[in-house]
Amino acid sequence: MAAPTKSSRKLLLLSNSTSHGGGYLDYCEQQIKDFLGRNVKKVVFVPYALTDRDWYTDIARKRFAELGYEVQSVHECSSPVEAVEQAEAIFIGGGNTFRLLKTLYDEKLVEPIRTQVLKHSIPYIGSSAGTNVATATINTTNDMPITCPPTFEALALIPFNINPHYIDSDPSSKHMGETREKRIMEYHEEAHCRPVLALREGSILWVEGNKTTLLGGLSARLFRKGELPAEYSPGDDLSFLLTAGL
Amino acid sequence: MAAPTKSSRKLLLLSNSTSHGGGYLDYCEQQIKDFLGRNVKKVVFVPYALTDRDWYTDIARKRFAELGYEVQSVHECSSPVEAVEQAEAIFIGGGNTFRLLKTLYDEKLVEPIRTQVLKHSIPYIGSSAGTNVATATINTTNDMPITCPPTFEALALIPFNINPHYIDSDPSSKHMGETREKRIMEYHEEAHCRPVLALREGSILWVEGNKTTLLGGLSARLFRKGELPAEYSPGDDLSFLLTAGL
Ligand SMILES: [Ca+2]
Ligand SMILES: [Ca+2]
Repeated sequence: MAAPTKSSRKLLLLSNSTSHGGGYLDYCEQQIKDFLGRNVKKVVFVPYALTDRDWYTDIARKRFAELGYEVQSVHECSSPVEAVEQAEAIFIGGGNTFRLLKTLYDEKLVEPIRTQVLKHSIPYIGSSAGTNVATATINTTNDMPITCPPTFEALALIPFNINPHYIDSDPSSKHMGETREKRIMEYHEEAHCRPVLALREGSILWVEGNKTTLLGGLSARLFRKGELPAEYSPGDDLSFLLTAGL
Repeated sequence: MAAPTKSSRKLLLLSNSTSHGGGYLDYCEQQIKDFLGRNVKKVVFVPYALTDRDWYTDIARKRFAELGYEVQSVHECSSPVEAVEQAEAIFIGGGNTFRLLKTLYDEKLVEPIRTQVLKHSIPYIGSSAGTNVATATINTTNDMPITCPPTFEALALIPFNINPHYIDSDPSSKHMGETREKRIMEYHEEAHCRPVLALREGSILWVEGNKTTLLGGLSARLFRKGELPAEYSPGDDLSFLLTAGL
């Protein structure tokens, strides 16, 4: 057993924001309410993964209002850094992970977010790309590299990688591009690789301090270098993934 | 009409190396023979997109031997740069585009390959990742960013982007990740974007000087910022894509 750290981080990491046939943040509505609780009144939103930030903020604002929370977007603030520094909670939405990470660096938000989450226990919700950037690196995003961030190193709020929107291989497919599993295996051929928790759409990872639990209706697939992939069920304790150092 | 340049580059850019139900380089066998002709005896192979370079070279060597060409892999040479500088023809195979581009920079092969192809008209064959790196940038690769190259700028043997393994959206899919078309549209929201020629599996682009023609059995889809995507048929002249400067 690794020694526990002092971190009292609180993260809710969503594989996706919208599941097939549902509305925006529908499948995870209850978990968001449970996670933020009644003490949080206002959520600071980071819309950088999409280009139309006003539109995106409008979507998030309306949805969080239904859950009882106000939304303030960093792009509406004269100082995004100050907005993060004063946040009661942070939500980073999905879109393109490369654009998101590049903008987080451009706006100098990486360290302020890390400080808020890891030192001050400000709750962090990430969805899709917002989940990718919460992990150690963006090496396991599914997005197209439409723009180049200064590094693939991300917020490192947790020490492993997540693959959101995980999709099982379709044996009837005639497409010859790599399956998702093959892509993750390629990552595990690299010397710098980390464990990859693959979250199918509808899966949620709840992290609190050094404890982490899988939520949602589906199992998740864990890839570790040199081991066969393993399936974990909703409710399973995955805290062992947090024992590597931040 | 843009003024013709002096380039007498010769490129054969394959969407994929293996089509469903076929063997390695089967679907494009005749085009490879037509492209290399009888004057080329030996092809310099770049296996950097995969980790097992010996295995990969063995596959390529056996296949090219059937077509009448010897294969020398850069990883078997004491100086990969010299191997490229003395090449009669160059073939860069598929695998992971990020790993491939990073290794091309690590091995200082980017400028030698550019010089050989653009100044000395050495024929270049690329497949999948080897096609991505032949273009302006790797912004439109489908691969997972398993490792970070110093830049996304690539060999720039042509001034636009290619999306290999292009796959049309499946309207019956319940997966909420971006479709390929959506990904390319995201790229076209970026200021630095270029036209993207999407090559379905089985498609081939033949470039000779300032002329380029689509080969293979399928149409290709061209994406240009602010325009509706357009389909081009096999045999179509796509030379207009080359008129932007190198
Ligand atoms: Ca995305
Ligand atoms: Ca690939």
